[in-house]
Amino acid sequence: MMLERFLGSAEAARALDDTAFVQAMLDFEAALARAQGRAGAIPRAAADAIARACHATRFDPAAIAEDGALAGSLAIPLTKALVAEVARTDAEASMFVHWGATSQDVLDTAQVLVGRRVLALVDRDLGALGAALLGHAQAQQATPVLARTLLQPAQVTSVDFKLAGWVAPLVRARTRLREAGARALQLQLGGAVGTRAALGEHADAVAAAMAQALQLRAPAAAWHTQRDELVALACELGVLAGSLGKIAKDIALMSQGEIGELAEGRAEGRGGSSTMPNKRNPVGAMVALAAAVRVPQRVAALLAAMPQAHERGLGDWQAELAEFSGLLASVHGAVFALRHAAEGLQFDAARMRAGIEAQRGLVFAEGVSMRLARAIGKPAAHRQVEQWSKRALADGEPLCDVALEGLAGDERLRAAVPVTELRALFDVDATARHASALAQAQLAALAVEAARQQRDPPWQAWLPAGDGEKGNA
Amino acid sequence: MMLERFLGSAEAARALDDTAFVQAMLDFEAALARAQGRAGAIPRAAADAIARACHATRFDPAAIAEDGALAGSLAIPLTKALVAEVARTDAEASMFVHWGATSQDVLDTAQVLVGRRVLALVDRDLGALGAALLGHAQAQQATPVLARTLLQPAQVTSVDFKLAGWVAPLVRARTRLREAGARALQLQLGGAVGTRAALGEHADAVAAAMAQALQLRAPAAAWHTQRDELVALACELGVLAGSLGKIAKDIALMSQGEIGELAEGRAEGRGGSSTMPNKRNPVGAMVALAAAVRVPQRVAALLAAMPQAHERGLGDWQAELAEFSGLLASVHGAVFALRHAAEGLQFDAARMRAGIEAQRGLVFAEGVSMRLARAIGKPAAHRQVEQWSKRALADGEPLCDVALEGLAGDERLRAAVPVTELRALFDVDATARHASALAQAQLAALAVEAARQQRDPPWQAWLPAGDGEKGNA
Amino acid sequence: MMLERFLGSAEAARALDDTAFVQAMLDFEAALARAQGRAGAIPRAAADAIARACHATRFDPAAIAEDGALAGSLAIPLTKALVAEVARTDAEASMFVHWGATSQDVLDTAQVLVGRRVLALVDRDLGALGAALLGHAQAQQATPVLARTLLQPAQVTSVDFKLAGWVAPLVRARTRLREAGARALQLQLGGAVGTRAALGEHADAVAAAMAQALQLRAPAAAWHTQRDELVALACELGVLAGSLGKIAKDIALMSQGEIGELAEGRAEGRGGSSTMPNKRNPVGAMVALAAAVRVPQRVAALLAAMPQAHERGLGDWQAELAEFSGLLASVHGAVFALRHAAEGLQFDAARMRAGIEAQRGLVFAEGVSMRLARAIGKPAAHRQVEQWSKRALADGEPLCDVALEGLAGDERLRAAVPVTELRALFDVDATARHASALAQAQLAALAVEAARQQRDPPWQAWLPAGDGEKGNA
Amino acid sequence: MMLERFLGSAEAARALDDTAFVQAMLDFEAALARAQGRAGAIPRAAADAIARACHATRFDPAAIAEDGALAGSLAIPLTKALVAEVARTDAEASMFVHWGATSQDVLDTAQVLVGRRVLALVDRDLGALGAALLGHAQAQQATPVLARTLLQPAQVTSVDFKLAGWVAPLVRARTRLREAGARALQLQLGGAVGTRAALGEHADAVAAAMAQALQLRAPAAAWHTQRDELVALACELGVLAGSLGKIAKDIALMSQGEIGELAEGRAEGRGGSSTMPNKRNPVGAMVALAAAVRVPQRVAALLAAMPQAHERGLGDWQAELAEFSGLLASVHGAVFALRHAAEGLQFDAARMRAGIEAQRGLVFAEGVSMRLARAIGKPAAHRQVEQWSKRALADGEPLCDVALEGLAGDERLRAAVPVTELRALFDVDATARHASALAQAQLAALAVEAARQQRDPPWQAWLPAGDGEKGNA
Repeated sequence: MMLERFLGSAEAARALDDTAFVQAMLDFEAALARAQGRAGAIPRAAADAIARACHATRFDPAAIAEDGALAGSLAIPLTKALVAEVARTDAEASMFVHWGATSQDVLDTAQVLVGRRVLALVDRDLGALGAALLGHAQAQQATPVLARTLLQPAQVTSVDFKLAGWVAPLVRARTRLREAGARALQLQLGGAVGTRAALGEHADAVAAAMAQALQLRAPAAAWHTQRDELVALACELGVLAGSLGKIAKDIALMSQGEIGELAEGRAEGRGGSSTMPNKRNPVGAMVALAAAVRVPQRVAALLAAMPQAHERGLGDWQAELAEFSGLLASVHGAVFALRHAAEGLQFDAARMRAGIEAQRGLVFAEGVSMRLARAIGKPAAHRQVEQWSKRALADGEPLCDVALEGLAGDERLRAAVPVTELRALFDVDATARHASALAQAQLAALAVEAARQQRDPPWQAWLPAGDGEKGNA
Repeated sequence: MMLERFLGSAEAARALDDTAFVQAMLDFEAALARAQGRAGAIPRAAADAIARACHATRFDPAAIAEDGALAGSLAIPLTKALVAEVARTDAEASMFVHWGATSQDVLDTAQVLVGRRVLALVDRDLGALGAALLGHAQAQQATPVLARTLLQPAQVTSVDFKLAGWVAPLVRARTRLREAGARALQLQLGGAVGTRAALGEHADAVAAAMAQALQLRAPAAAWHTQRDELVALACELGVLAGSLGKIAKDIALMSQGEIGELAEGRAEGRGGSSTMPNKRNPVGAMVALAAAVRVPQRVAALLAAMPQAHERGLGDWQAELAEFSGLLASVHGAVFALRHAAEGLQFDAARMRAGIEAQRGLVFAEGVSMRLARAIGKPAAHRQVEQWSKRALADGEPLCDVALEGLAGDERLRAAVPVTELRALFDVDATARHASALAQAQLAALAVEAARQQRDPPWQAWLPAGDGEKGNA
Repeated sequence: MMLERFLGSAEAARALDDTAFVQAMLDFEAALARAQGRAGAIPRAAADAIARACHATRFDPAAIAEDGALAGSLAIPLTKALVAEVARTDAEASMFVHWGATSQDVLDTAQVLVGRRVLALVDRDLGALGAALLGHAQAQQATPVLARTLLQPAQVTSVDFKLAGWVAPLVRARTRLREAGARALQLQLGGAVGTRAALGEHADAVAAAMAQALQLRAPAAAWHTQRDELVALACELGVLAGSLGKIAKDIALMSQGEIGELAEGRAEGRGGSSTMPNKRNPVGAMVALAAAVRVPQRVAALLAAMPQAHERGLGDWQAELAEFSGLLASVHGAVFALRHAAEGLQFDAARMRAGIEAQRGLVFAEGVSMRLARAIGKPAAHRQVEQWSKRALADGEPLCDVALEGLAGDERLRAAVPVTELRALFDVDATARHASALAQAQLAALAVEAARQQRDPPWQAWLPAGDGEKGNA
Repeated sequence: MMLERFLGSAEAARALDDTAFVQAMLDFEAALARAQGRAGAIPRAAADAIARACHATRFDPAAIAEDGALAGSLAIPLTKALVAEVARTDAEASMFVHWGATSQDVLDTAQVLVGRRVLALVDRDLGALGAALLGHAQAQQATPVLARTLLQPAQVTSVDFKLAGWVAPLVRARTRLREAGARALQLQLGGAVGTRAALGEHADAVAAAMAQALQLRAPAAAWHTQRDELVALACELGVLAGSLGKIAKDIALMSQGEIGELAEGRAEGRGGSSTMPNKRNPVGAMVALAAAVRVPQRVAALLAAMPQAHERGLGDWQAELAEFSGLLASVHGAVFALRHAAEGLQFDAARMRAGIEAQRGLVFAEGVSMRLARAIGKPAAHRQVEQWSKRALADGEPLCDVALEGLAGDERLRAAVPVTELRALFDVDATARHASALAQAQLAALAVEAARQQRDPPWQAWLPAGDGEKGNA
């Protein structure tokens, strides 16, 4: 649906479409047949015939979807169609299709296979997003910018300090996602009720061989109604969407026309307005913010679907399949959009400085208050600075000037606080350098970790051929 | 996506697909052009040329989706394509495409138009579901069945009493949905920031004519960032999904193999198992239960998306469009599936009675306790009945026999409670008749209301040609 | 808990505390006894004795809470304590406590009684909030302010136009809340499984008398597991929280230090910072925004809890009770905080105008484009204005000047668009007056509706004595 | 509130009450003062005086809550009260209270400290719950029980197989919770905007000393608006609630009166009914199921609150504090309730076997089908078994007998499938033993892991004195 596509990516849409899902189900069936053939559970020739038939191009995904909706099971029409396809050349072999497996085995495994491809896309674009932000952090080292709390100007910080706050959760997310993926990306093969009864004596060998062939973890037991590892993975995707949302919100706020500290790069045809030619909309942030609204609910749906009865759920499992798929699409949409926004992100250091200047030194009030406190105690200092601040606000005079004047007129203060020291408290660049020093130490560690992640991408093998760098095409 | 299709209906899928959405956007553009032509805001000939071009078959929905994702706006590629299409025959006219409107005008109105079709489907199937259940309630009048609280057998009730509890919320839902629809199904036409500035002096006339043409309410003001009426409608859909979920849960529980009081009708190919030929799965209930897991989250997403900034939201509005669409699909999927389940629902009165008998009278303990209380006070009565119950449980003897024995051995009790009266307390059919009497009065009123609703279907006109009676095809 | 209290109100906290809830349960028991006494179902004297004992001051809410948690039912310790209390003076009477009712009858009715008090608070403060905003709309008539879409400056609108967009959903919410309340505020009295079996022949009379006494609706049937009307009410509270969140977001954004168009009034001790004496935090908006994050989830929980099995739910009903209570607290916290913020809201017309001026006319680009389009066609006009806009942006020159220059240099344009007309397109005040005219018409209708609501407050009788005007005390 | 207390535990309620939270804030202030005293940032004597004052008993938590709600910050009244308390004995020292810290530093750290205590409770009871289930798994080894899919009887499994499916996610949850806790339980100390500007040159030393004193992780940077690690911890709690909900649902379903395979132990006063003396309600499952409804929404709220603007959020952060606290209470309530339910859980092997017998062999249909398939091909086998199953259903005859009869009458089948082999397919105990063998291998590994977890409880030190074994007191 175009309203979904709008908030997703072309790559994830392809990885999650009906053809891809049917292929993933066929990959399961092919791996099952091959493993059973090798183990002697079914005839080798039958295994080969089945595996040869397992190509999505030979099937009609739309018909399988329709029939599945009617049957109340997507696996039934899939296996029926596979039986027919195999039987076209080898009636004998067609009898061994889906041998000993259950609907949930093929659907869960397909879900995992498809999910892994999207995870690989998320991982890739998370790396690229982090790299882009780390690059900006080097370029913008110690650039002063307002810090804001509760949407009010609070103090001065540095651009790289802000960027470190954006990057760190992304690097952590990548690590946690890989850990969660390593746990959740596992074969499902339990047979009708998880006991692998119909798989017979070869069950363990077949499962091991399938896991090997599909490059999935072989679980300690079927997880038909033990969804914790899958949902824990979904949760990490949810946490990532939250961290992306935080970056997007900051970008959107800093891109406000009245503030103008940031702007998303203007790719051809991107971010324009149908009616207002002057506008430059932060559309990357928009997509990430949309995901930040939607994803928590997808995670909640997955958590809510966990109490699945007995050996197979009724309704909750089926809901989970659909929600997990939607979650993957949303999260990759957000990472992808923000990656491209970040790569083109433009910083306006002059606007940033102007924004600080417009505060007339009030954002340094805390520092002044702390310095005075050492001399005259905190309560008196707080009162004094509050009074100066009010005057500065009322008269439109810089707080620094008001404070210097105040110092000049108060012998006790003058004795306690040297004028140069007071002036120094209003030093925008020094404040930014202090923040930047903290940030650069953190950024150095993050860069090392990011490089390590980049060198060792666990899902590289499953990435599609293209590299997603050419935009949302 | 097949995992979504599986939980939805073919009709809603068609009503919400890209072609339908593009057509709805074009319906907006055609109505706008025609209204502006009549009002003299744009040339009549241009209006005609634009309206003539507004057929989805002339456009490529997939391309619009792709371009829209790139542009950060679906309206931009749509209007661009419409301009091109009009220009093919009338370059002059093409300049008046989308005149004075904004992206959100066309998208919101399209959403409402598309939503109305699905609402009409929901309304229709809600009527049919209610009718089916009302029919069963007549057929099953006073059939005794266990009442259960906290999943434990509690007392005896009647099948029609249970059915009245299912139907009443559906009749109320239909009423509330129509009220909410009457409020929410309104034109969006505000221009860039809601003030209709670019629509000029003709704005009001154009809006009125468009509302008339599209059979939508003309709102008091643009609702670009006032989403309360749309979300209130979504909430009613959410409440409906909850009421459907309650019915589905009851059906699923009563269909458990060990209980077997109900069974969904077995349509050809529906509800079978890929591995267990004996199974008869409650697949209608399954779909409704899946919706009951998912829909609350969609409603939450819509509520969470409400705080949209200033005159157009960033991310939240876009999230809302996608979530609303998904909500409609889920809810119709549930109503449709449950309608068909209800129409074929089979009642096993013998199993119901056997289930009551198996309780050995313990479910009448409260009645006995109340009767004794009048004689010997509640605490003593409670203790006495508890003791009898324990004996009945331990010995596997019917509570009635234990109580009669107890009565025989206790002069005070014997004096206070005639034996016939005690026996009467264990009368399964009398208990069911009592419940049924209450239910039939309520059902009569519900039937009247349902008939009134059926006579006056507000959205009949927007129903697709087919009638959905042939299953999920 | 203080983290909850922080986001709520003192009044709602009191209305929802354990003493209030115990009293509401006792109100049910007293009404039940009195009605049964009058109907002859229990002795009159017993009814009087029970009713006399029903004062929360005689009970220990904390002990009831602890015992209830242990027993798995709050009604059991309550009725046990009531029996004991009645028995202190009248052992005979104590036997008729809770006669024929079930746990859920007392808990659901108590929930409704307590909920009604908070609804009355919400209704009252919604009226006051609306009145405050309507007052500002009169005072700020036609004050120009930037309109913004996607967080970017888009055009010029008027303050009263923005305010109309805030008020309208509140007036609608009040109407819808009253409708939903009229449906949901109903007595629960079904006995063990909803059939009122143990209430005997007097059941109807007793229910009618109780509804009368408690001023609740008498439902057509027990609603033990038919929660649609209660949840529909909860949904309306959810929609209200969304509309409040929209206002809060706008206030927060317009109060940003760099924008400064609005400021929440600075009550003593409110909105200060512990470390930054200069700050003025929008704490009313903060509370409403917190509710906008939390409330959607509470609504989702209530929707998710709807599929309650058979005749009493297991877990879902109990979850509902807790969630509904939390929902009420959150929503009143938001209305209350925003009411006080709105009452003290300060508008800075000068900053608003300065913000418009800083846009150098670019926000009028659409108007210029539309005007040119009539002369040279939309595509050419769009291109022309885009080019002028870019120059204006690059040179820091007002778009009006650039356009006038452009006009002067282009014979065709000069012929088509008179200079005065072009100038007029940049008239800030005229644009605001246009928006204001629309708004004032809508505001007049809203004021009439608000006055009607104010005259006829359905829950006035249940308001606590104080009037909540003295702040969050 | 009693409706919350009802679904929680006494211990968690105490760990999260206002006194505990105030003490946790004071623990932060004391640690800050001491660390600054040692580092020379404030006078040693002042540090000692402050630390001495930091006892919750000297403060009025209710007043701090009220003042905090008014001020829009809980830290302001807390520090004000602490200043006053210190000043009672040492006016000089009082000036150094909260030196260089910000509101969020104290609130976030207090949240973490309080959260850790509840996590320790969760960890403890998770261990006990797992141990109880592992114990049952030993006792119930190879006891046959129906396996059910989509709420329909499907095959035979063993009780220990079911129990392994319950335990495994709990053992995994404990591991993941500890990992997530190790990441999230960290000091917050960033000063006004995260740069520790006001903490001066001693910032790092102070932070390190505080982390050491409070036994918290020292974070790489302030996490004022980087909430990923906290929310990832919350997600693990959410996943745990889902796994608990699955166990609770199975217990509730298996405890249905008609099934009676399980029963929660009947502690005195627990699980009774106010009106039905015979009932035995699964109240432990009830509490866990309530949590399974609520917790997903709490997690969603925390995820939704993640996009916090700039250097401190407006509304979202405040919402997070309240939601996290509620999440902790819900999850411990569920673990605690289920632990006690599990410890008293009663298994009825006879009812289990009777339930299998009542299926008349139909649950072995898949096995028969698979065996026949090897002889006559899958389609023919499937058809044959379906036909036999229908006859068995219609005639109420055991499927085994029908099949033997069928075999006798069909030469080809008779030749292919020896009678003894066919009979063996219906061997209930052999089927259970097969499942049990799988389960025992898994259980052995789980027991080893559980023992390791038990030996090394990371949060032992923070457990309250009592041990929670005496029920919900």
